[in-house]
Amino acid sequence: MTDGTRERFLTATAKLLQERGYRGTSLNDILSESGAPRGSLYYHFPGGKEELAREATQREVRTISEYIATAFRECADPVEAVRAYVEGAREHIRTGGFLLGCPVASLVLDSPEASSSIRDLCEEALDDWQALIRDGLTVSGISVERADSLAILILTSVEGALILARSRRDPKPLDTVAEELAASVSEALRETTGAGDEGVRGAR
Amino acid sequence: MTDGTRERFLTATAKLLQERGYRGTSLNDILSESGAPRGSLYYHFPGGKEELAREATQREVRTISEYIATAFRECADPVEAVRAYVEGAREHIRTGGFLLGCPVASLVLDSPEASSSIRDLCEEALDDWQALIRDGLTVSGISVERADSLAILILTSVEGALILARSRRDPKPLDTVAEELAASVSEALRETTGAGDEGVRGAR
Repeated sequence: MTDGTRERFLTATAKLLQERGYRGTSLNDILSESGAPRGSLYYHFPGGKEELAREATQREVRTISEYIATAFRECADPVEAVRAYVEGAREHIRTGGFLLGCPVASLVLDSPEASSSIRDLCEEALDDWQALIRDGLTVSGISVERADSLAILILTSVEGALILARSRRDPKPLDTVAEELAASVSEALRETTGAGDEGVRGAR
Repeated sequence: MTDGTRERFLTATAKLLQERGYRGTSLNDILSESGAPRGSLYYHFPGGKEELAREATQREVRTISEYIATAFRECADPVEAVRAYVEGAREHIRTGGFLLGCPVASLVLDSPEASSSIRDLCEEALDDWQALIRDGLTVSGISVERADSLAILILTSVEGALILARSRRDPKPLDTVAEELAASVSEALRETTGAGDEGVRGAR
């Protein structure tokens, strides 16, 4: 029961932060969304909104980090791993009715000056995702430098595609980005292995 | 004097919306940032915060649209036009002390459910930018379909790079994205013109 209440607060907070940002989410919004009694909020989260936001975001970040790591571990082909990553983002925004998005982006855009602990958390999350993608790409023999640059392209275009998809209430920008990224990663693999042009070119 | 006050409200609103989002910006914040008298706010903007946000954002959107159109008109090489577009975003966030960003992204992430007129404005802005980039690329002979897909990659990765740059207080993600996009556009031009591989490959 106690754990269930805690869980309800975290789930409600994660949803509201993605919908409205940090500044746009009040403790009253969280109470109302969670349906939990007011008294239990400060019992579970004595640090109030900042603590709740930090813990809810950390949980979302961890889920995404594990998702990226799994995609690269389970897909032998890094092109498929990148597709799986984009597909995960696509499903998140689609099943959330285009009200949700990246748990970090909405905080970066409205709160860095509001809370330094949340600012640090967001920075670490973006660093972590970039490193996971980079390391996933290097397993296929792509150089660390090339993989790091591609990881930035992958991470930034998915972040941007989530914004376009939300604005249009349509997941298509994520599909387009998946195709473009697949082509870029294929090209990097081709440069690495020196394999013939025909296969990759034909896949476009 | 009257026009000066109006201008001060719009400039203050554009800045605050980028820093804090729509929900995080109050009329009191706008008054305090503008330094203008309270009575003049409703005189100039009887529709209050929503009208101010709409007009301030429209003005920022127009500036970016003109910037993109000029970049493609003035650069004979579309690769240079894309670099100029990214450079514009880089300068905006750098000179703003990493507190500013895309005037549309922060609204998409916190307000689509708060104001349908602002939601529509954001959607039209993103459509407009995508079309300007796509049309700029087709002038060089890239097919409309290929150019549209590249325009999505360009727009989304710049949006995402603005988020990374703001989080890290470092413009480097924009530099990386500029290099990656230059390579993708070069590749599309190579496919279009059938020119030799060596030049483009050597540029990497």
